[in-house]
Amino acid sequence: MAKAEKYRLAQIVERFGGEVLGNSRTQISQVATLESAAAGHISFLAQAKYRKLLAGTRAGAVILSKADAGLSALPRIVCDDPYLYFAKVSALFNPPQALKPGVHRTAVIERGTRIPASASIGAGAYIGRQVKLGKGVVIGPGCHIGDAVVLGAASHLHAHVIIYPGCRLGERALVHSGAVIGADGFGFAQEHGSWRKVPQLGKVLIGDDVEIGANTCIDRGALDDTVIEDGVKLDNLIQIGHNVRIGAHTAIAGCTGIAGSTRIGKRCMIGGGVGILGHLDIADRVTIHATALVTKSIRQAGTYGGYPAEDSRSWARRVAVLHHVDSLRERLRKIEQQRSLPEEKA
Amino acid sequence: MAKAEKYRLAQIVERFGGEVLGNSRTQISQVATLESAAAGHISFLAQAKYRKLLAGTRAGAVILSKADAGLSALPRIVCDDPYLYFAKVSALFNPPQALKPGVHRTAVIERGTRIPASASIGAGAYIGRQVKLGKGVVIGPGCHIGDAVVLGAASHLHAHVIIYPGCRLGERALVHSGAVIGADGFGFAQEHGSWRKVPQLGKVLIGDDVEIGANTCIDRGALDDTVIEDGVKLDNLIQIGHNVRIGAHTAIAGCTGIAGSTRIGKRCMIGGGVGILGHLDIADRVTIHATALVTKSIRQAGTYGGYPAEDSRSWARRVAVLHHVDSLRERLRKIEQQRSLPEEKA
Amino acid sequence: MAKAEKYRLAQIVERFGGEVLGNSRTQISQVATLESAAAGHISFLAQAKYRKLLAGTRAGAVILSKADAGLSALPRIVCDDPYLYFAKVSALFNPPQALKPGVHRTAVIERGTRIPASASIGAGAYIGRQVKLGKGVVIGPGCHIGDAVVLGAASHLHAHVIIYPGCRLGERALVHSGAVIGADGFGFAQEHGSWRKVPQLGKVLIGDDVEIGANTCIDRGALDDTVIEDGVKLDNLIQIGHNVRIGAHTAIAGCTGIAGSTRIGKRCMIGGGVGILGHLDIADRVTIHATALVTKSIRQAGTYGGYPAEDSRSWARRVAVLHHVDSLRERLRKIEQQRSLPEEKA
Repeated sequence: MAKAEKYRLAQIVERFGGEVLGNSRTQISQVATLESAAAGHISFLAQAKYRKLLAGTRAGAVILSKADAGLSALPRIVCDDPYLYFAKVSALFNPPQALKPGVHRTAVIERGTRIPASASIGAGAYIGRQVKLGKGVVIGPGCHIGDAVVLGAASHLHAHVIIYPGCRLGERALVHSGAVIGADGFGFAQEHGSWRKVPQLGKVLIGDDVEIGANTCIDRGALDDTVIEDGVKLDNLIQIGHNVRIGAHTAIAGCTGIAGSTRIGKRCMIGGGVGILGHLDIADRVTIHATALVTKSIRQAGTYGGYPAEDSRSWARRVAVLHHVDSLRERLRKIEQQRSLPEEKA
Repeated sequence: MAKAEKYRLAQIVERFGGEVLGNSRTQISQVATLESAAAGHISFLAQAKYRKLLAGTRAGAVILSKADAGLSALPRIVCDDPYLYFAKVSALFNPPQALKPGVHRTAVIERGTRIPASASIGAGAYIGRQVKLGKGVVIGPGCHIGDAVVLGAASHLHAHVIIYPGCRLGERALVHSGAVIGADGFGFAQEHGSWRKVPQLGKVLIGDDVEIGANTCIDRGALDDTVIEDGVKLDNLIQIGHNVRIGAHTAIAGCTGIAGSTRIGKRCMIGGGVGILGHLDIADRVTIHATALVTKSIRQAGTYGGYPAEDSRSWARRVAVLHHVDSLRERLRKIEQQRSLPEEKA
Repeated sequence: MAKAEKYRLAQIVERFGGEVLGNSRTQISQVATLESAAAGHISFLAQAKYRKLLAGTRAGAVILSKADAGLSALPRIVCDDPYLYFAKVSALFNPPQALKPGVHRTAVIERGTRIPASASIGAGAYIGRQVKLGKGVVIGPGCHIGDAVVLGAASHLHAHVIIYPGCRLGERALVHSGAVIGADGFGFAQEHGSWRKVPQLGKVLIGDDVEIGANTCIDRGALDDTVIEDGVKLDNLIQIGHNVRIGAHTAIAGCTGIAGSTRIGKRCMIGGGVGILGHLDIADRVTIHATALVTKSIRQAGTYGGYPAEDSRSWARRVAVLHHVDSLRERLRKIEQQRSLPEEKA
């Protein structure tokens, strides 16, 4: 993936801001971690715990916060947010690989679908009827695009992404292999001890700039639609139930499951393995710790965790107290013994 | 998906029972939620919390319980179970899309397999040797059907379903994309600190009317078979270990994992994200709350939850008590202080 | 799958050790459980709880531990570890099916990749550029192998395995359907309330003798690589975050998630549904109970469980104590009442 392109530190700060300390003509060709960097690489320090690695790094330059600017004598870029700055620099040195437009000879395109000249359709991909593809769309080998799907410009589906009929993705979507978008929600009515299927008639509507991880599932709505707003980032192996709505710029880590009809606010951060029950409302800017179980709506921005989830300070205190229940019992026993003694004496 | 078919309320109750209040000649063409319904749509009210939406609905008719019959002046069908009734009406207006029978030119059919004239085999599907397909089977694009698989009549596999050799599905199976049926169970014997694989020789046997969600995995048995009985409904991203047996009409929500050799009874309801350890027995008609951890067999019908799971009343009480441990400590401290004071005085 | 090959007990102990009691010329053609075995089958007893099945078995022979050698009069093999012994015998009777080498006519092989004569490439498989395949590799139907992937000799990918560009698997890998190796890690920097992607430039490096379950995901590293060492066994639906390292011969059960940059030691056993936070260190020979949440590094070999996880004896004690919190409250109330009474009297 390494590109031959090189930039001097001065050119980098010209693009992204920040200030160079040391030799601004230092030439950089790639990014690397402090540990594995060599000459020609630029690295970064974003967490205090990695400071000890700074002294030993062989990087040609580093990206540091203002507070850490004095910790190294290497050529360095000083900025407000080294991790964000590094993300930009890394993208500069590692642009997405350009794919030759065209339709692989083994792809199957059904009637009523027009493939833009700028699109790339991989080997063995299947594209149904009346599909609408934006400019520059990349559909990887083995993808399955159901009838009447809409894919916004510059969207990129890796190999083996499955999109059921009628679902829509916005522009610049990035979807990883094995993701399934638009399968039936889990809707059944009981009838004499068995289950009668409730047809799942809604769609999945996905905004712009959404990333969806490998083997993640987003179910179509039962009647209305399941909605993923702009800028949402979903990790791998996530389950999104029917009629869920996820607010813009919310990020959700892997293995989390969100039951049907729950609405998550904007700019939330939800840890891995979290369970959120159905028909709940989660406010904007809520952070939920990994593997929490959310059983009630959360009305206020803040940080929550636990089983069942509560605000994270309560949860931390509860965990601490639980570690003392043992001693509570001991202390209680002592009091009981003392009380019984006088009575015996009496 | 909308169909042009229309029915009058009188025709609907003729099919499904119930009683019409208001104009029984009202014509209906589709189902919708109370919020999004328009004229020509029929909606329903199944949960008290949505009563407030009834007043504002623009639906042409609604399905109500007897208790709620008076809450609306709209043309309405009154019945015992509005959600079940709605499921039937929705299926009437939204029959499964009929697929043209035939084998796509890009499908691969191995020797010894006969495709019924009524079957539909999608683009790029692979069907191994000696596979037996019932009438009207639909195998979606990109499916993989291993050797000697048996698929009952009217079964429908969506795109990219994987079935390993020798597994059997009954009639009217509905399987969603990415489901993997019959991969090896997780069986290894330790040998000098490394692992020796135990061959997984059993199959997966699946009854009639089973639905399997996207990216769900059902492992084949180690020696005997893994068994899913009639009418079982499995949501997405579920893991079923080798030699598990799931009783008829049990429903399991997403992200749940069931370890090897556990037997689940009939008509159970298991929430999302539940973990059930191996070699356990769960009785019939057991309900398990989302994300519970089941570490012991459950011998009695009832509702269970928690970590580890116990009957749900105990669990609810325990959670409540935990919320008071803090105050217990405070009260204990007070008693201890009071006790120490007299001693000082003495 | 049954093979016609037959062995006498004497021939089996000649290969695998142990001692025959009873008729050593007894002929065996297959393995089976105690319950389902018939004449000609050999079964085994590895857990005390199944002893009661030994009396009723119709097996032709059984594999027993020395301690259990006297529990049956059947022809039997007595050995140190009946489960391990059975694993070897089962593999003897059930060797992996040999596949005819060759490239299916519908497979797509890109330029710069040479397919060894001994390899088998299934229908519809896609193999990118500059891929390196060892001898005897089996790539199942519908697999996707990205550019520059390396697959060691005798590796076997079942149908629909996805490997992203640049990843490497060692020899004798066994990978199940739907596994996704090398998708992007979940790396984003915040910028004015939205997310900027951090390019994921590392690879996934996998050692020899690794088994990977169905629909399991292993993300590529952000800068350095994600590493799975020799002999690791991963069950289904596992999520391995970017830059994780898993030590040799560690086994992980289904639905477990391991967040980015965590390092797991060698010969660990991790239960199903476990969550392990990012940037942690887990020592060698650590056992973690199912669905535990690991929030801190674990420095010592041992057994851990709970939410959050702690050493398993503490956890078991805590669960026990929690079951007494109720009574603690009752006892406390009693003391408080007794204390208040004298005051009233005073």
